[in-house]
Amino acid sequence: MRTLQDRVKEDGVVIDEKILKVDSFLNHQIDAKLMYEVGQVITEHFKDKKITKVLTIEASGIAPAIMASLHLDVPCLFAKKAKPSTMTSEFYQTDIHSFTKNTTSTVVIAKQFLNEDDHVLIIDDFLANGEASLGLHRLVQAANATTSGIGIVIEKSFQPGREKLESEGLEVLSLCQVASLLGNTVKLVGE
Amino acid sequence: MRTLQDRVKEDGVVIDEKILKVDSFLNHQIDAKLMYEVGQVITEHFKDKKITKVLTIEASGIAPAIMASLHLDVPCLFAKKAKPSTMTSEFYQTDIHSFTKNTTSTVVIAKQFLNEDDHVLIIDDFLANGEASLGLHRLVQAANATTSGIGIVIEKSFQPGREKLESEGLEVLSLCQVASLLGNTVKLVGE
Repeated sequence: MRTLQDRVKEDGVVIDEKILKVDSFLNHQIDAKLMYEVGQVITEHFKDKKITKVLTIEASGIAPAIMASLHLDVPCLFAKKAKPSTMTSEFYQTDIHSFTKNTTSTVVIAKQFLNEDDHVLIIDDFLANGEASLGLHRLVQAANATTSGIGIVIEKSFQPGREKLESEGLEVLSLCQVASLLGNTVKLVGE
Repeated sequence: MRTLQDRVKEDGVVIDEKILKVDSFLNHQIDAKLMYEVGQVITEHFKDKKITKVLTIEASGIAPAIMASLHLDVPCLFAKKAKPSTMTSEFYQTDIHSFTKNTTSTVVIAKQFLNEDDHVLIIDDFLANGEASLGLHRLVQAANATTSGIGIVIEKSFQPGREKLESEGLEVLSLCQVASLLGNTVKLVGE
């Protein structure tokens, strides 16, 4: 998606060779029109998949997910980061490790919002090691629902996330693929 | 806003006389079309205020805020809940107390995204005691910016939030005003 790729090149801040900060349009300040367009492109790609629900994780996944949800005309569900003490039998839960932050969060969704008839489109802001998307996929599996695809705003293609997801048989669409952050420069795939 | 009010009556779950759970369309699963309409109504109300930025707080504020942001064609900024250890001089920070959860969170915004020329529309999912909106207003003040209005999805009118905000000279628009949750029933203002 050209407008997004241009934006990543212009406004992305390289923190180190693995971390790209996009606080000006996605992770802190959000460009709503850009996210609307992101939602449109993701929807167009997965339009034949009979999606019944969009699933993401708080907080940065919500903006792209709700825009896809708007275009698909299906509900958007966001997994919550919760302390294990709040768990009950009414929730599906899984642990998601963040290599970037070196933390592990327990995330939950209420069982009532996902069932075996659901065809789920997972959406997230970043794909790096794939831990978040895999965690969301485990929640879909726990509900005996089907993951119909994964839509990602920015993929760090030099990390193994896509490979892990595809080896699970999952289809991944990324709207911007970053090939490298070496030399303090954002290099996109195909450049 | 009639569609929202009907939805609150139909799908709101009364937990106790102070807590209303709307996990099916706002706080866990989100109805994107309803939020799109919420954004439209808030935008229409504040359209003459020359809003330059929408400000909310993660996570449940993001959906209504980004829809208002989309209609207003201005950026949406969400305050992050952060540990004090992550604070630096590049952030404005304030503490927000939640009477519902009986917790106090430090929330931050990066200084670079708010300045003295900004006219800010604060948006949040709920108004109860007003602590979240007041906290966001303090962040706006810290940046020497102007709070031009407050848009709320659901107001619990039996709690003192509106009174506190109005005594600060702030204009509050709520799209659904709950008069009482007594007797396990959602009673709206005007019913």
